[in-house]
Amino acid sequence: MVSKPWSVVSIVGVGLIGGSFALALRKAGFRGKIIGVSSTSSIEAALARRVIDEALPLRDAAGQSDLIYLSQPIERILQTLEEIDPWVFPGTLITDAGSTKAAIVQCAAKKIRRGRFVGGHPMAGKQSRGVAEADADLFQRRPYVLMSPDAELEQWIRRIGSRVVILQPEEHDRLVALTSHLPQLISTVLGSSIARERGAAQVAGPAAIDMTRLAMSPYDVWRDILLTNSGPIDHALTEFIEQLEELRGMLLRPELEQKFEQAAAGAHALRGVELL
Amino acid sequence: MVSKPWSVVSIVGVGLIGGSFALALRKAGFRGKIIGVSSTSSIEAALARRVIDEALPLRDAAGQSDLIYLSQPIERILQTLEEIDPWVFPGTLITDAGSTKAAIVQCAAKKIRRGRFVGGHPMAGKQSRGVAEADADLFQRRPYVLMSPDAELEQWIRRIGSRVVILQPEEHDRLVALTSHLPQLISTVLGSSIARERGAAQVAGPAAIDMTRLAMSPYDVWRDILLTNSGPIDHALTEFIEQLEELRGMLLRPELEQKFEQAAAGAHALRGVELL
Repeated sequence: MVSKPWSVVSIVGVGLIGGSFALALRKAGFRGKIIGVSSTSSIEAALARRVIDEALPLRDAAGQSDLIYLSQPIERILQTLEEIDPWVFPGTLITDAGSTKAAIVQCAAKKIRRGRFVGGHPMAGKQSRGVAEADADLFQRRPYVLMSPDAELEQWIRRIGSRVVILQPEEHDRLVALTSHLPQLISTVLGSSIARERGAAQVAGPAAIDMTRLAMSPYDVWRDILLTNSGPIDHALTEFIEQLEELRGMLLRPELEQKFEQAAAGAHALRGVELL
Repeated sequence: MVSKPWSVVSIVGVGLIGGSFALALRKAGFRGKIIGVSSTSSIEAALARRVIDEALPLRDAAGQSDLIYLSQPIERILQTLEEIDPWVFPGTLITDAGSTKAAIVQCAAKKIRRGRFVGGHPMAGKQSRGVAEADADLFQRRPYVLMSPDAELEQWIRRIGSRVVILQPEEHDRLVALTSHLPQLISTVLGSSIARERGAAQVAGPAAIDMTRLAMSPYDVWRDILLTNSGPIDHALTEFIEQLEELRGMLLRPELEQKFEQAAAGAHALRGVELL
């Protein structure tokens, strides 16, 4: 299907990711209209920063958009998918930026009939949230995962500096359980262990600082992720615990050197990709 | 005991820490002589960068120093402590920068008779090693742990920007097992899990990057740490595994919110200290 170039884009949920996507589109040369659908406070901040051109209720925005970008929390994305389809033009592209994909793609498969849904997940973020933190360069040099190919969406994703990766929803969820959700939970447990140990903060160096940055993430973001990806997360945690037990058994044995070498190779591989 | 102000300082092991201590002393106004005792390649680099004024063998350096700063790997510090005492002036202050303290302090208690030994551990570092990376500001705003008070040493530690913390060796080792050694091993296991998972690097975002930085640390530094602090590390690992199991059991339960809050409090407390 050949689609006309986008002239109206709606950002549903104008926070860090949605706001950054709007700014990135603009910086990459998008000259159409950008509509924001969000809470009053986000809309005010987004208009003040010129992140969006105007604000509308979802129904009105949906009815005139070529692209609808859902950058809400996961549960809100699911709610939006339940109601949006009757309001869109036939063929309108709907994508999302939710951190887990299987639940969202399943919901869209049932509910999106007039529109076309392509699930997405930009592997980018910041510790701080909200449109005040939105940044046109947030997606630069980051992977941007799509659940299926789409020529025009892929083109814009490349223009905003990201690298397109196509993955099945279940494969995506399994991989991010390891690379994103497990690191969060590890950091949470470490932060909570340090919180309970009087004196630990006195001697903390760069290692503890690094490894507890994620522990400052707010629970409300994670609740949805854990609810919609509990199977893969449980699996990743179980395997990680087994690996820790194995390492505990080799603390004073020479095999540990191989473990360090394998770990360093893994860490370097991540950075190789980051530098692409 | 009133001691004369230092006029000669020897740095034994002129790498990142020893070189940074020399540069930091200079920047803080130390006008005496700084002697380096190290490998030929480190000495050449240290002289070229003017980190040290001259190089001598340990015996000759020890015989004219007011402070002897042992910044070698832990096993080498233990070897130096075995032989240095006959060569120093009575009352010469010997300190070290080893990452574990009980083994070193026990060794010094047996071997250092003419000199006075005060074990130390600056909670500072960088990923890269060697005197080429030495930095006069490395210790700024960092805790610097001493095993016993010493007025002149404490004064210089404050002058180089650090905050003195006095701890017993066993307490130090127990705390750093939690705040430094456990984070290293967690990062190693995570890096090695990611290394074995094809495709993980494709979707890695900032969380994976952050949490595997330590995984790039070289094993040779860690071998000595694990050998000299295996009890507290085993204990910290065991408790961490128990905590992970507990968290795995509450993934979908509301108690997890409290865990996130406790973790965030711990992480913020570390940063509060860092900002002092």
